[in-house]
Amino acid sequence: MTQRALAELLGTFWLVFGGCGSAILAAAFPDVGIGLLGVSFAFGLTVLTMAYAIGHISGCHLNPAVTLGLVAGGRFPMKEAPVYIIAQVIGAILAAAALFSIANGAEGFSGGLATNGFGEHSPGGYNMMAGLIAEVILTAFFLMIIMGATDGRAPAGFAPIAIGLGLTLIHLISIPVTNTSVNPARSTGPALLEGGIALQQLWLFWVAPIVGGVLGAIAYRVIGGSDDS
Amino acid sequence: MTQRALAELLGTFWLVFGGCGSAILAAAFPDVGIGLLGVSFAFGLTVLTMAYAIGHISGCHLNPAVTLGLVAGGRFPMKEAPVYIIAQVIGAILAAAALFSIANGAEGFSGGLATNGFGEHSPGGYNMMAGLIAEVILTAFFLMIIMGATDGRAPAGFAPIAIGLGLTLIHLISIPVTNTSVNPARSTGPALLEGGIALQQLWLFWVAPIVGGVLGAIAYRVIGGSDDS
Amino acid sequence: MTQRALAELLGTFWLVFGGCGSAILAAAFPDVGIGLLGVSFAFGLTVLTMAYAIGHISGCHLNPAVTLGLVAGGRFPMKEAPVYIIAQVIGAILAAAALFSIANGAEGFSGGLATNGFGEHSPGGYNMMAGLIAEVILTAFFLMIIMGATDGRAPAGFAPIAIGLGLTLIHLISIPVTNTSVNPARSTGPALLEGGIALQQLWLFWVAPIVGGVLGAIAYRVIGGSDDS
Amino acid sequence: MTQRALAELLGTFWLVFGGCGSAILAAAFPDVGIGLLGVSFAFGLTVLTMAYAIGHISGCHLNPAVTLGLVAGGRFPMKEAPVYIIAQVIGAILAAAALFSIANGAEGFSGGLATNGFGEHSPGGYNMMAGLIAEVILTAFFLMIIMGATDGRAPAGFAPIAIGLGLTLIHLISIPVTNTSVNPARSTGPALLEGGIALQQLWLFWVAPIVGGVLGAIAYRVIGGSDDS
Repeated sequence: MTQRALAELLGTFWLVFGGCGSAILAAAFPDVGIGLLGVSFAFGLTVLTMAYAIGHISGCHLNPAVTLGLVAGGRFPMKEAPVYIIAQVIGAILAAAALFSIANGAEGFSGGLATNGFGEHSPGGYNMMAGLIAEVILTAFFLMIIMGATDGRAPAGFAPIAIGLGLTLIHLISIPVTNTSVNPARSTGPALLEGGIALQQLWLFWVAPIVGGVLGAIAYRVIGGSDDS
Repeated sequence: MTQRALAELLGTFWLVFGGCGSAILAAAFPDVGIGLLGVSFAFGLTVLTMAYAIGHISGCHLNPAVTLGLVAGGRFPMKEAPVYIIAQVIGAILAAAALFSIANGAEGFSGGLATNGFGEHSPGGYNMMAGLIAEVILTAFFLMIIMGATDGRAPAGFAPIAIGLGLTLIHLISIPVTNTSVNPARSTGPALLEGGIALQQLWLFWVAPIVGGVLGAIAYRVIGGSDDS
Repeated sequence: MTQRALAELLGTFWLVFGGCGSAILAAAFPDVGIGLLGVSFAFGLTVLTMAYAIGHISGCHLNPAVTLGLVAGGRFPMKEAPVYIIAQVIGAILAAAALFSIANGAEGFSGGLATNGFGEHSPGGYNMMAGLIAEVILTAFFLMIIMGATDGRAPAGFAPIAIGLGLTLIHLISIPVTNTSVNPARSTGPALLEGGIALQQLWLFWVAPIVGGVLGAIAYRVIGGSDDS
Repeated sequence: MTQRALAELLGTFWLVFGGCGSAILAAAFPDVGIGLLGVSFAFGLTVLTMAYAIGHISGCHLNPAVTLGLVAGGRFPMKEAPVYIIAQVIGAILAAAALFSIANGAEGFSGGLATNGFGEHSPGGYNMMAGLIAEVILTAFFLMIIMGATDGRAPAGFAPIAIGLGLTLIHLISIPVTNTSVNPARSTGPALLEGGIALQQLWLFWVAPIVGGVLGAIAYRVIGGSDDS
């Protein structure tokens, strides 16, 4: 279990370091910045790369909503969930700290760490209800993609592409709404270091992704998905 | 049949929610918006992800022109087409409603839902004939890609990549012309909620994709495609 | 042979329609245009999609420099090359005509069809020697990728991804230099319809890609590539 | 060995020619330039394409930090490392020379060859410590991805996608910090031709990637990775 938890810790470090790092360091770089499109690819590629790198070790959840969704979907034992989730949150916190140390190495760093938010903390000014609906729907479909692409009847080996690019797609839709979470660990790491409003709004990015993840896993079972992974 | 129809409904929901959602929420976000390139990837990735997630359940058509093209290509029974098409249209309508509820959560929402159009409703001012030619050609090649990539002689497992990124390519070419349909369900959901000129022009986005889809399926058979999927 | 030639014709139509079409219709669309990055993806995805759709029918060359490179590499019979090349050029001409009919459907169409060029006709003002060097090197590596990815020792089924995204990469490097050819058919179709300087410079986009393609195929054999495809 | 070394030379030529070439020629092209997002894809796709083309010949390292990381990970014999590294550096130098000859073919060429740097030579003004941390972390995860994706327990054939897009991701994060190296050969070729500050700072882009690569390979073994490739 220790090795698998360590794999989850490192994988979630990579998710936050790569996804939030691209947002902090490169998204708004003058003239040639990668924009929200580049950030979307960065988040997705963290999952795609880690799924091929450590999928055979830990399953590569990197996300408490995925872990709990897979429990609801009958794919992961509930008793192992707490260790996974703790490892994921620790990885996310360490990544936020590493990003802070790099971003702080140039003048003009605002201190922002690509936290999630709604209302006045939403990038596009979307209210709480919009953020809640978006995060629930997006995490639900994320779990449907995960459950389906790892189903024994789906072609073997392609799941990391479907899941990683699925996370890219989710970001393409919703960065303006909540800065896109669908992942309580990803929200927690940066929020703990940034503090303030990001921390006050953190509850939504635990509640909505977990509710959505569980609903999505159940939805997949309803449309005929098998339990086999 | 019910489970497969439900899979088509959910999959088409995802196609419209993701594709049109990225266009409405993120395409023109100030300074760092994802642009038409991001929207093109979003549409394609909805299909790529769903094809891996539910391809083994329903075949993942998500599009009446695909369903009818596959009937013309000898790959799908005509008698099952109506239920698929109804499910696809319902999924598209529900997605447009969900998008409306999110987009409405920020100030300045114009009410536009990324509908398709020509003439004065074309993003780049292209006339009806240009739109008709583009939609027929693009849907024809979309069906050729679908028929070919799922042919028993093509390498197994890669079809969702070819088909999904094929839809990305189609959008890269033609968003300025018609806002890109090649999918009557995708056109219908947003048009029903937006009304007005989008609804008046909706007929073209049923006629052209279906004509193109049938032509493409026949073309694939002509160049030597087998009937086996 | 007729079916295979027709497959090459349709595939090359798609390459020019998709690649040049994205450049003409969407690259410089105001504010949200896809830019050279989007055009690069479009060209690459035409090949990726067609390789999965018709690779098992014709081998999906879509390019005289590929056909002749594969002859030099011992992978394709010389006697079949002329029919392939004629089909490719016809497909490219038809695509340019189709694009003209669509582009002409909006006001302000300049008549430009994304032709290739050097010197005053280079997008970035690169001289003939720069264009020649770029086209030779890029086509050489394109053939190395094609020979290698379809080698019997490479993993099966992935060649269309490597080759298609290889063409994307080639465009990411060199659109400013020559508007990127590496494909005499792709250069010929638009040049015939556009005429003028594009037609005068067309010779270079036959000479350089074919020289490069043959060199690349030989280089692959030198580094130990087998003859088996 | 000669053929394998030649494969490494050509592959590293392609990495530098494609990655740095896209940066020099296309990143800042007026209005439609590919930006840092396009450069990130270019670097990644050089590796993806070469890994499918020559992976079965040389293993496709293209990078001294990868070669030494794989030695540390028990995947590559130390005695073969020097020849690989020499071939990689020669390939990178030749690519920088080829790029110079092309870039010099247009007016206004600054002489810059996309070299790596920190402090005053960092694109975003990041100091040495930030550059060091970034290069160590990024190369460490690059090796984890390489070790994991080529592990016998990972799905076969997908490693080039994971590794290539992993390099894309690395660039999405860190071009503003150091212009992104994670590869001493990639840093050396352009620095030798550009000279000046790029050459003075070259040491960091040997030290940090090699330290990071070795750490990453060890980390992968710790989390339970097998020695089998």
